[in-house]
Amino acid sequence: MHLEHIGIAVKDLEASKQVFDALFGFQSYKTEPVESEQVNTVFYQTGQSKVELLQGLGETDSISKFVEKKGEGIHHLAFEVSDIQAEITRLEAMGFQFVSSIPKAGADNKMICFLHPKSTNGVLIELCQMIL
Amino acid sequence: MHLEHIGIAVKDLEASKQVFDALFGFQSYKTEPVESEQVNTVFYQTGQSKVELLQGLGETDSISKFVEKKGEGIHHLAFEVSDIQAEITRLEAMGFQFVSSIPKAGADNKMICFLHPKSTNGVLIELCQMIL
Repeated sequence: MHLEHIGIAVKDLEASKQVFDALFGFQSYKTEPVESEQVNTVFYQTGQSKVELLQGLGETDSISKFVEKKGEGIHHLAFEVSDIQAEITRLEAMGFQFVSSIPKAGADNKMICFLHPKSTNGVLIELCQMIL
Repeated sequence: MHLEHIGIAVKDLEASKQVFDALFGFQSYKTEPVESEQVNTVFYQTGQSKVELLQGLGETDSISKFVEKKGEGIHHLAFEVSDIQAEITRLEAMGFQFVSSIPKAGADNKMICFLHPKSTNGVLIELCQMIL
């Protein structure tokens, strides 16, 4: 299980892209809307792990609600696993709770699911598996 | 500039260590108090990047204050650079603000400094350089 990416919730993707381009000293490698989550995303390769900026596309998506409630900032950590269904089964057996334990299509060619932050010290954790 | 670690603020390091041991399916590789920050830390190697759990050792340290104000959760992202002073100079010239632009000794054999989250979409960002 390795850290695949960090998701950062932002209000204005274009403005934030300029901030992080300047911060990193290099540019994002792609912009990708994710219809299932109603978000637009920008990705940076920062070593093995990526930084994903996320802007909600409406008012009811999870990123817009997060920004409304808590302001901009780190939204989730994503760990890549080779078999997401096996990890869900393993973690549920240990008492971890999932927001939904049925994986769905996420950004960057991945199947994803989220653990409930109540299980994990307030940290929203995504498990993801590359779609081959 | 690569993602060196993510810092997660917790209330009870021993309890959280058990949660993350179970989540990752492997154990932390070290526990290290950091006197300069008045915190105790636990580190996991999750691929190239690490996860650092932090518990404040008093009431006035930054981690205890964070937990008191916002609850447990992700506290900061740390990016490793080869020359921290050069990066501070580069970023200040671009208008980024630092909490303090004088690097100090941090955990895990590093010199560290923090950008002010006002500059970076609400994300507290640490720059770190390995002490050789």
